[in-house]
Amino acid sequence: MKRTSRDIRTANRYEVLRQIIAASPTSRQELAAATGLSLATVATLVGELLDLRMITEVGFEDSAGGRPRGLVAVNASGGALIGVDIAETYVHVELFDLALNVLARAEEDVRPGESLPEQVVAHVASAVGSVVAQAGVEGSRVLGVGVSVPGQVDRATGTSEYAPNWDWHEVPLLDLLTEHIAYPLYLDNPLRASAVAELWFGAARGRGDAVVVNLGTGVGAGLVLGGALHRGVSNSAGEWGHTTIVLDGRLCRCGRNGCVEAYVGASGIMLTLRELSADSALLHPEDQTATIAALARGVEAGDPVALKALRDTVRYLGAGIADLVNLFNPEVVVLSSWVATALGEPLVAQVREAVARHALPRPMAATEIVLSPIPTDPVCLGAATFALEGALRSVGQRQHKRSRTAPPS
Amino acid sequence: MKRTSRDIRTANRYEVLRQIIAASPTSRQELAAATGLSLATVATLVGELLDLRMITEVGFEDSAGGRPRGLVAVNASGGALIGVDIAETYVHVELFDLALNVLARAEEDVRPGESLPEQVVAHVASAVGSVVAQAGVEGSRVLGVGVSVPGQVDRATGTSEYAPNWDWHEVPLLDLLTEHIAYPLYLDNPLRASAVAELWFGAARGRGDAVVVNLGTGVGAGLVLGGALHRGVSNSAGEWGHTTIVLDGRLCRCGRNGCVEAYVGASGIMLTLRELSADSALLHPEDQTATIAALARGVEAGDPVALKALRDTVRYLGAGIADLVNLFNPEVVVLSSWVATALGEPLVAQVREAVARHALPRPMAATEIVLSPIPTDPVCLGAATFALEGALRSVGQRQHKRSRTAPPS
Ligand SMILES: [Zn+2]
Ligand SMILES: [Zn+2]
Repeated sequence: MKRTSRDIRTANRYEVLRQIIAASPTSRQELAAATGLSLATVATLVGELLDLRMITEVGFEDSAGGRPRGLVAVNASGGALIGVDIAETYVHVELFDLALNVLARAEEDVRPGESLPEQVVAHVASAVGSVVAQAGVEGSRVLGVGVSVPGQVDRATGTSEYAPNWDWHEVPLLDLLTEHIAYPLYLDNPLRASAVAELWFGAARGRGDAVVVNLGTGVGAGLVLGGALHRGVSNSAGEWGHTTIVLDGRLCRCGRNGCVEAYVGASGIMLTLRELSADSALLHPEDQTATIAALARGVEAGDPVALKALRDTVRYLGAGIADLVNLFNPEVVVLSSWVATALGEPLVAQVREAVARHALPRPMAATEIVLSPIPTDPVCLGAATFALEGALRSVGQRQHKRSRTAPPS
Repeated sequence: MKRTSRDIRTANRYEVLRQIIAASPTSRQELAAATGLSLATVATLVGELLDLRMITEVGFEDSAGGRPRGLVAVNASGGALIGVDIAETYVHVELFDLALNVLARAEEDVRPGESLPEQVVAHVASAVGSVVAQAGVEGSRVLGVGVSVPGQVDRATGTSEYAPNWDWHEVPLLDLLTEHIAYPLYLDNPLRASAVAELWFGAARGRGDAVVVNLGTGVGAGLVLGGALHRGVSNSAGEWGHTTIVLDGRLCRCGRNGCVEAYVGASGIMLTLRELSADSALLHPEDQTATIAALARGVEAGDPVALKALRDTVRYLGAGIADLVNLFNPEVVVLSSWVATALGEPLVAQVREAVARHALPRPMAATEIVLSPIPTDPVCLGAATFALEGALRSVGQRQHKRSRTAPPS
């Protein structure tokens, strides 16, 4: 989408709050230095955040020879945010304070038979009720609930356009959730949730261009370009899992052949293991999590089948990530989601080597490849961040209406 | 790179001039409506462009019931811009007025033996001298010279980091050119030149997200994201030609295997033809241009080898462009450069079908696939546009210094 001056004002508001959350307490002068914004812009944005009680004044510090500088800090108890990670086999919900500390967690299993939207919605409603009760927060203090659902999502209408795991098509998910949940709701998918988590709190913070590679049951890339999430014209950018790495190769669950996901997603890795050794002790049929955990232990123990399965997976993954490096020329590639977490440093080390073999030298030289540094579920954190951004955006709209005669920017 | 408020001011200045060039004469009110900027912002930017004599006041129009509105138009004779397209086998130079009309052209052949930077630079200097003399413009009126050279380019230092056709490494091209050319020089590569040409004057005008696919001897993608060129952190984004489409496939001239360029670049297409029929009359050994022209005629005449070669090429091209659609979710994919021009509508029609088979339905539904509508050499036009942008940027910097106390944006 085309970016307007108003988008930039919103992005600046995000960036100032991001910086305050990262480094409380802090002064307007430090914020201006850290964000590159003018002191006047920072003062305006800090004023807005104080009005919202998202931050508070917390005293003064002496400045060398000048008058004391006012300090501000995030007002952790100024509101609560909820992040919902709907995945293939579970619904995971976390409630955060405004400093993005986790105050409560709930997890519900989604069993293989439970593929109806109503069944999944009931799990979400129950888990959201649970975290609010556990944390003891008043409903009026919940600023919003961000919901991540796999697949293609229309944010504007709150529709799950296509969710491959349950074969959902055009499910009006937000309408269904609204019947159970009274807080403002924001729908998006795990690619964008994990990207926004890295942008606010992880390896993409302060970076212009970053690619967040999600390795789980599904595979995809969250894109941070020009310091903001790249959504594309219909919010479906980042479908790297369904780009072709082997023309006419393995059948993918999307119905096409040779997709990256068919080789490096959890079921692709299981198929590789089965092809190497059909009776491998590493294989737990029908259980991706147990299989990937066994693979990780096998790699650590030097099991030859495990080592070969990892090497084969990295052959595809390295070429696929090199494509992202060549196309986007990012500062950092972040490996995220549960398969990346489970396989950890041995995976990252091999990926770095394989990408260096495939990518062009100039973009390669500018790119770091790292594991996500976010210690909790990045999808829950990112979903909660969508709720935070939603709250900041609606403020912006009120601001905008008040100041119709804004000077040219 | 991270985008700042100042980048947005520069982008707004570009957009207002772009709109004036597209629709002269026009009023400030029409400009505000067309660009989505406030009338106050437009008035400021129009004032800057008038000061620069890039545009002029050209009278008034009556507005219904109100006072007459001042009209402005591009001042075509307010300056000259030069675009230089250094390609594998030729140097093509065009001189433009400020309405981007071509006033003079020069072309020099670069022979296979002439691979030294000094030899190429001599051709550029001679052709630039020629267009200035032909057009009869005073040197002081040349605002700048944009130079496009294939491969990886460091704009900031004016270095050709790597040009595969001549095996150049770290050639200080702008320094060499400065010895012969006294005008401001701007270096970049054909991917970005053709993308900026589409953004200002072609199929990406007014679009947020567009991908300009270059099909020539080299292959790559110019990226327009968020209404501006995406360069990546080291100006090397868009290397789609060297993304993997067939793991362990054909050897590419970059030294890797299975790259898109190895199948859909001019030499890739020649190899496909040779594999289909080693003694095909379509093949002109060592002459890519003649071979692609013969292929285009063969397709039109219904020659079975030509039809099969086109179909095979589109198999790879369709999958590769589908990858771009899945990753970027653009509004438009523009096919540009000489191979696309030569193969024309039969190519585009087949590409549309093949991409639809490979891409996911949601991003596919949002994407148009078109041939570049630019009637002249888009790389020359884009290179000249870089010179225009350079002139507008330096203005911006002077402006910026004058208005240090700008209000928060
Ligand atoms: Zn697929
Ligand atoms: Zn290559």
